[in-house]
Amino acid sequence: MIKIGLIGFGYWGPNLLRNFMANPNFQVYAVADGNPKRLELVQRIDARIKLIADADILINDPEIDAVVIATPVGTHYPLTMKALAKKKHVLVEKPLCTNQREAQEMIDLAEKMQVTLMVDHTFLFNSSVQKIHEICRSGELGKICSFDSVRVNLGLFQQDINVLWDLGPHDFSIVHYLFNEEPIHMEAAAYAHLNPHLPDMTYLTMYFPSNMIAHFNMSWMSPVKVRRVSIGGTNKMLVWDDLNHEEKIKIYNSGISHQQEENRNVIIPEYRIGDIFSPRVPNKEALQGVVAHFANVIFKKEKSLMDGYAGLRVVKMLETAQQAIESNLQQLSKKRETHSCKKEYS
Amino acid sequence: MIKIGLIGFGYWGPNLLRNFMANPNFQVYAVADGNPKRLELVQRIDARIKLIADADILINDPEIDAVVIATPVGTHYPLTMKALAKKKHVLVEKPLCTNQREAQEMIDLAEKMQVTLMVDHTFLFNSSVQKIHEICRSGELGKICSFDSVRVNLGLFQQDINVLWDLGPHDFSIVHYLFNEEPIHMEAAAYAHLNPHLPDMTYLTMYFPSNMIAHFNMSWMSPVKVRRVSIGGTNKMLVWDDLNHEEKIKIYNSGISHQQEENRNVIIPEYRIGDIFSPRVPNKEALQGVVAHFANVIFKKEKSLMDGYAGLRVVKMLETAQQAIESNLQQLSKKRETHSCKKEYS
Amino acid sequence: MIKIGLIGFGYWGPNLLRNFMANPNFQVYAVADGNPKRLELVQRIDARIKLIADADILINDPEIDAVVIATPVGTHYPLTMKALAKKKHVLVEKPLCTNQREAQEMIDLAEKMQVTLMVDHTFLFNSSVQKIHEICRSGELGKICSFDSVRVNLGLFQQDINVLWDLGPHDFSIVHYLFNEEPIHMEAAAYAHLNPHLPDMTYLTMYFPSNMIAHFNMSWMSPVKVRRVSIGGTNKMLVWDDLNHEEKIKIYNSGISHQQEENRNVIIPEYRIGDIFSPRVPNKEALQGVVAHFANVIFKKEKSLMDGYAGLRVVKMLETAQQAIESNLQQLSKKRETHSCKKEYS
Amino acid sequence: MIKIGLIGFGYWGPNLLRNFMANPNFQVYAVADGNPKRLELVQRIDARIKLIADADILINDPEIDAVVIATPVGTHYPLTMKALAKKKHVLVEKPLCTNQREAQEMIDLAEKMQVTLMVDHTFLFNSSVQKIHEICRSGELGKICSFDSVRVNLGLFQQDINVLWDLGPHDFSIVHYLFNEEPIHMEAAAYAHLNPHLPDMTYLTMYFPSNMIAHFNMSWMSPVKVRRVSIGGTNKMLVWDDLNHEEKIKIYNSGISHQQEENRNVIIPEYRIGDIFSPRVPNKEALQGVVAHFANVIFKKEKSLMDGYAGLRVVKMLETAQQAIESNLQQLSKKRETHSCKKEYS
Repeated sequence: MIKIGLIGFGYWGPNLLRNFMANPNFQVYAVADGNPKRLELVQRIDARIKLIADADILINDPEIDAVVIATPVGTHYPLTMKALAKKKHVLVEKPLCTNQREAQEMIDLAEKMQVTLMVDHTFLFNSSVQKIHEICRSGELGKICSFDSVRVNLGLFQQDINVLWDLGPHDFSIVHYLFNEEPIHMEAAAYAHLNPHLPDMTYLTMYFPSNMIAHFNMSWMSPVKVRRVSIGGTNKMLVWDDLNHEEKIKIYNSGISHQQEENRNVIIPEYRIGDIFSPRVPNKEALQGVVAHFANVIFKKEKSLMDGYAGLRVVKMLETAQQAIESNLQQLSKKRETHSCKKEYS
Repeated sequence: MIKIGLIGFGYWGPNLLRNFMANPNFQVYAVADGNPKRLELVQRIDARIKLIADADILINDPEIDAVVIATPVGTHYPLTMKALAKKKHVLVEKPLCTNQREAQEMIDLAEKMQVTLMVDHTFLFNSSVQKIHEICRSGELGKICSFDSVRVNLGLFQQDINVLWDLGPHDFSIVHYLFNEEPIHMEAAAYAHLNPHLPDMTYLTMYFPSNMIAHFNMSWMSPVKVRRVSIGGTNKMLVWDDLNHEEKIKIYNSGISHQQEENRNVIIPEYRIGDIFSPRVPNKEALQGVVAHFANVIFKKEKSLMDGYAGLRVVKMLETAQQAIESNLQQLSKKRETHSCKKEYS
Repeated sequence: MIKIGLIGFGYWGPNLLRNFMANPNFQVYAVADGNPKRLELVQRIDARIKLIADADILINDPEIDAVVIATPVGTHYPLTMKALAKKKHVLVEKPLCTNQREAQEMIDLAEKMQVTLMVDHTFLFNSSVQKIHEICRSGELGKICSFDSVRVNLGLFQQDINVLWDLGPHDFSIVHYLFNEEPIHMEAAAYAHLNPHLPDMTYLTMYFPSNMIAHFNMSWMSPVKVRRVSIGGTNKMLVWDDLNHEEKIKIYNSGISHQQEENRNVIIPEYRIGDIFSPRVPNKEALQGVVAHFANVIFKKEKSLMDGYAGLRVVKMLETAQQAIESNLQQLSKKRETHSCKKEYS
Repeated sequence: MIKIGLIGFGYWGPNLLRNFMANPNFQVYAVADGNPKRLELVQRIDARIKLIADADILINDPEIDAVVIATPVGTHYPLTMKALAKKKHVLVEKPLCTNQREAQEMIDLAEKMQVTLMVDHTFLFNSSVQKIHEICRSGELGKICSFDSVRVNLGLFQQDINVLWDLGPHDFSIVHYLFNEEPIHMEAAAYAHLNPHLPDMTYLTMYFPSNMIAHFNMSWMSPVKVRRVSIGGTNKMLVWDDLNHEEKIKIYNSGISHQQEENRNVIIPEYRIGDIFSPRVPNKEALQGVVAHFANVIFKKEKSLMDGYAGLRVVKMLETAQQAIESNLQQLSKKRETHSCKKEYS
């Protein structure tokens, strides 16, 4: 039995609490949150849980074996470092932290203290993602050429991070999990409808060593919610529509191949439109899998899908994407100046 | 009554023929096509139409008042120039030609010869596009912030042009018609699944003087057909789904506004999710409108939505986007080299 | 503060518990269930709640002001009668009971004891149903001609009741709430895939004094889940698709009217296909409204939408429909015999 | 080469003309229609076709080998009888005629004259129907238990026939083709929004010797167009959605089976929700298949799917359904009287 201390009881905290309470390997010992109203909620759910106002006190509690951190991104690094220093296992919300240097320090300290450091990339335990992983690995799709993700919605504005840092960790962890490669080049465009410092819409293109291209459309400003990923392979194509409850995954036995005409430099595309297959995807909560995995990693030294290195790689992708956005905004700003000058003098 | 000569009876030719036959202002006098089988088809449709193997003969026929050109893009310029030189009115398929210089020459010659030059940007007479134009102009959406277009499908490979030159004219003519401004900056990514010289997938971002951002996802490689445009305004949002036969246009009375807290530098987003309205869009063929417009422009000197200048602007956008694709491919190619070197020596 | 005793903690019990706990007018004092495992669950949720194995003990507890009954249908009548006799207010799950005579006795006893008797027709507090009620009452649709409901799914088999008694209370309470009239005639067909005594599919047609026709398709055997109601009025039509999260209700400004030609006995139908409007429907839990309403009925003597009479009317519709099913099955059985005889001797 | 005379150039005539023109086994020799404007249209399509105002003249023309009849239902019988008497092959629009007696006479005369009599049940050559036929015959679905069809729309009002006679022939010919059995019992409800003599909405239930139940919802008064058939088998279920262009047919590997508990009279339903498979359905025009079939039946004495007997069976189903509707309306009318009396005296 692992005694858990949970820090942060905001949007995601209640889900963590519920899943840790339901797993027999864990006992939720304490919850820390600076807001007394949130602690009241905890008490209503289970009066036996210790309520703590100050995260440091929780971290220093010798009863606690593992700390679960669900606080704003900026606090992930200091809280995790303190907990690791106290030899606590740590499960931290995504993204792991705000830059690669911090991530590396966290990994190093966890190794030194011989404790588990895990980042909650929940989507890796999503039934659809696991099914797609299985399908991609089986070779059924052929060589993967393209990955196109649309993750847009209205109304999930964050006060502290932009849309990239909010939604990007989902998609980047999925891409890394599915294809196990890192981009060699990235391009990005971003747009802020409200706060110019926090873009609420971004378009990203990534290029991979295998020649795969990935494109991400992330937005907080779409009136229609879309959660759709299309994966193009040389044999088949797959579409994952997370909002289609009956057919989340569809595999299209469709594609185009080319025949080079003999003695001629002409490529004739050949179409194939075939059957569509929608595999049954079990209906289970991803976070439940994360919690079970955390126990297995601690007890059985199971190799983690979402260890510090996985967290680091996602942070690296976020940092690179952020740089691409900024360089793009600078370039654009120059163009705007030139454009205004032209107009002024014309 | 205007006597028409149609050059090219391939994919689009039969639609042009049918609509010109149905319009009482026109008489289809002759059709030219190098392929005798295609001419046979014409004869079966109307035995009175003159069949001509050679476009030049058609252009030189003094009986003909106007020439309609539906041939591969590369031939638009020479055929149009010859027809204009013979003082024929010309309706040419989109895109007008392959570069801005050609476009300007065509415009100049048409003005000199005092004949009509029109490019068939059919979508401008699409009922949904006209309705959206009306809605945008009315101010109902507020200031337009973003335009996001997805135009993807499987199986429309062209042998002579890439996906940008195939699908781009639709979207670019629509954007120009709706918002009447030209981009000040463009970025593009492209991918070729088959023929490396003819990308079959492209992602484009355009930035406009008004601060609007537009993004285009064009592909010949999607297993699912999508034709969707989302327009984000400061008041309302609009989605045009061309494949939804019952509700092509939806207007969402949804959005986010911000309230700056007094004495504080904090922006609080305020959500609004409201009613959805789907205006009735008449079900009529766009090409019928183009043909009627052609008659009005010739006879009544009506100002054309799709004159040579409109054609030129679209060609300019295509050329700029093509350059963005090429510069992107070069940049990527360098990164790939660096990446391989690194791997080699590491 | 009303002290509640909840009897039955099966499928629906947890929802009742959660909503009563959240409402400040109520204190959940005790829960009774014969299954100790279910009581354990209650304890985990709130350790202060009294756990009781025997419903009678709960009913006799003088601390309790109101009893909430969420047990199998067959027990609604005896449990409610005992509770009413003890002068407890009662909220009982739908359907109220198994026949009209029982219903009338329950109503009479509640009146005699001057306590509240309410049946949990939850759908009357569903946001969509309330919106539709408002729309129908406003006259926007014109005179209502037809009501067509499809409520089908896979996998909600009940052991004790057939599909009519399981799903019918939803639809019948809605129809009664919306139109406030009782059918003058009913027809029914039923089919049992598995247990011949418990039909799992039924088709019902009802005819109303106002001339409205209503049709109900209820099934436990559809691979696709459908929850759709279409209402046809003389002015407009309305569709409620409960599974469409973005546009639950759509109002179609479409219809057909007729013009009688002068001096002639010919009716010329005139079509009208117009705009579609989807009003915003608030996203709130219906059961929360039921619980608040229960408090208002008890304290403020608010007229209840779901009093004993409402429960009785739904039971009457169920009984009549059940008779229609049985008479239909008998008729069919005779036809089958005749058919077999014919075959035998032919 | 069979010389065809087409009688009736209304709604369906142009489709027949186009398909007969495209088939090399046929020459369209003449078209008859009482309306000169319709004949003008024919001339515009092919100036070589003989135009005839009077159907009798066409039937008597010795040049003509086969007559295609696309006139109002009431005229099918006399025109067909005349044509058969002149030893012409006949393809007549559905339904074959207005009653069984007429149908039998037509069959008898065709046999006597040794010519082909075929009724255009176009749907039997619809790609989806043929695929479903293949699937049902393969046994993949198990034993068929239920067939549920929804065929509703706005705006196809007929002046001479009700919704049953308009839409029923489609569904009834499909049911007969797929399952090859005739109903032993039928029930029907109908409703007329406009003309009380021509119901525009009907609900039908049919019971078959195999124990299959079929239900049909037909309407001209639905704001939303639906064309959906669900077939429930003991192994799998199939849904045909004719408006879903990408996945017309879906096979659900889902169902419910029951296990009888040992020594107990308890049936435990066991759910199975599995994969979904959507077979590729070729995109071809059904009428083209009908026309080719007509040639094969005439020349190669191919057994016809849609001979006089097939036509007769559909007419028999229509007559029986019509009787069910009428008996239902009478029953309802009595109830309404009783209801009014009760109200009057209460």
